[in-house]
Amino acid sequence: MSEPKPSDTALIRVRLDLAYDGTDFSGWAAQPTLRTVQGELTTGLSTVLRSPEPVRVTVAGRTDAGVHARGQVAHVDLDAAAWAALPGRSDREPGRALVSRLVGVLPHDIVVRRAELASPGFDARFSAVERRYLYRLADADAVRDPLRRHETVWWRRPLDVEAMDEASRALVGLRDFAAFCKQREGATTVRTLLDFSWTRGPDGVLEATVRADAFCHSMVRSLVGSVVPVGEGRRDRDWPRRLQEGAQRGSGLHVMPPHGLSLEEVVYPDDAELANRAVMTRARRAPVTTAAPAEAERTEA
Amino acid sequence: MSEPKPSDTALIRVRLDLAYDGTDFSGWAAQPTLRTVQGELTTGLSTVLRSPEPVRVTVAGRTDAGVHARGQVAHVDLDAAAWAALPGRSDREPGRALVSRLVGVLPHDIVVRRAELASPGFDARFSAVERRYLYRLADADAVRDPLRRHETVWWRRPLDVEAMDEASRALVGLRDFAAFCKQREGATTVRTLLDFSWTRGPDGVLEATVRADAFCHSMVRSLVGSVVPVGEGRRDRDWPRRLQEGAQRGSGLHVMPPHGLSLEEVVYPDDAELANRAVMTRARRAPVTTAAPAEAERTEA
Repeated sequence: MSEPKPSDTALIRVRLDLAYDGTDFSGWAAQPTLRTVQGELTTGLSTVLRSPEPVRVTVAGRTDAGVHARGQVAHVDLDAAAWAALPGRSDREPGRALVSRLVGVLPHDIVVRRAELASPGFDARFSAVERRYLYRLADADAVRDPLRRHETVWWRRPLDVEAMDEASRALVGLRDFAAFCKQREGATTVRTLLDFSWTRGPDGVLEATVRADAFCHSMVRSLVGSVVPVGEGRRDRDWPRRLQEGAQRGSGLHVMPPHGLSLEEVVYPDDAELANRAVMTRARRAPVTTAAPAEAERTEA
Repeated sequence: MSEPKPSDTALIRVRLDLAYDGTDFSGWAAQPTLRTVQGELTTGLSTVLRSPEPVRVTVAGRTDAGVHARGQVAHVDLDAAAWAALPGRSDREPGRALVSRLVGVLPHDIVVRRAELASPGFDARFSAVERRYLYRLADADAVRDPLRRHETVWWRRPLDVEAMDEASRALVGLRDFAAFCKQREGATTVRTLLDFSWTRGPDGVLEATVRADAFCHSMVRSLVGSVVPVGEGRRDRDWPRRLQEGAQRGSGLHVMPPHGLSLEEVVYPDDAELANRAVMTRARRAPVTTAAPAEAERTEA
């Protein structure tokens, strides 16, 4: 009795870990005439895999124009034979061979850092249990670093990091973040904010860590925008919390620029829970109106 | 009895601390048709100070094309009246007013972080007792960060950081670094290398710290180039030291690319020693041939 062998047309799922400089991209999602991360990645993968059709890439967090990523995760479903053929005459395993070939075809502002067979049940988008973002703000001439200007917002006024930290932590929890979300009919704006805190790094730059199960569109930039006036002393420390409780997109709330923002990490459960998680996520986020389930939830930020 | 007041035409010396992204510059030194850091800075200062003649900028370390700086130091000699007039109607002191005005006229790849009256005897170039450089190398796909690609060399082969560190430390000391210097007639190639060591940072990138009293032209990039083959296992750990002892620019020595290199810090002595130091440096580095003293020593890297 031998194990059944996959036929040449069987599909296998591959997890990709990637990073990109969002500066010159019109965001993640492919658009006909614009340069996007998904567009470049699809072209690169299709070239390397000699795929007759564009390779479809599913991503954990669809980032907006100008937003960066160091810890983005995606998956692609590939022909098993194409995967097995990747090493060619090299003794690399297929994932390493794929990464190496992609280096040759992708532009320098996208790096696929790792490619590997996904665990059973893995879905880059629906298996994710947590996304972590970083926002960087330089609030003094003395801490502006021109080498990192593409990923740091230069603010003209000094900011009180302790006040911002206190105001941010007050937002943590299971809440309705409608005040920080672009409204989309039928989509919930309830999220679990796991962490929202500020530190001043060794280079003097303010860094926010923002973690949640998922984010609605432009939520991180709105959250940061709500606490910057607190840091400037123009709003008191309760203001962001009061905005949240008002549950409407607040007047005076400034959505911060995209280039300070980077998706740093996407967290997945253990293999055993993976398949289960994807089913639950789809069900829980199902819309109450007619939007298609797979589109009911945006995880952009 | 009152203190004598400086006349309107008295000169005062101002210290500038600056940072730049070297990517789009043809190095530090002003050249007629090329974009240089000195050229942009001179234009910006002359504009802000409404100077009828170009403001002359003297720098601690003249960096090559593509080399960056986070800790560059320069000085300018300004008309005392122009300095005093800088705050205009603001209540800023002149240094802060100058920095703020420069933000408005300098391109985003140069930042003057601080401007202040220099201590008596201060000379950005001749008072410096130490320069510290950083070199960044990413030796695996998994640690390539597209956001920092402008300041990190991507190397295709894995490197043994422990071997590189040992080989590097063997070069520390007062030595003739002719093997790592472009020869210039009449200029000494003896330097005190204070530190040359490697660590793998939290992001997985290899970072070299290189400190010396001064550097000859392309010396840091040559030093790094001598230990990379050790990291690859193609040369033994004694090779860089043997190159140094050979005292000739070695065959097989690869000068590393400029974009991995950044001038991080220039160290000056206490105020009391400052003036003394400048006199000593000029004397010690005097050429044995006819080169003008001020040009006998390059501190580029």
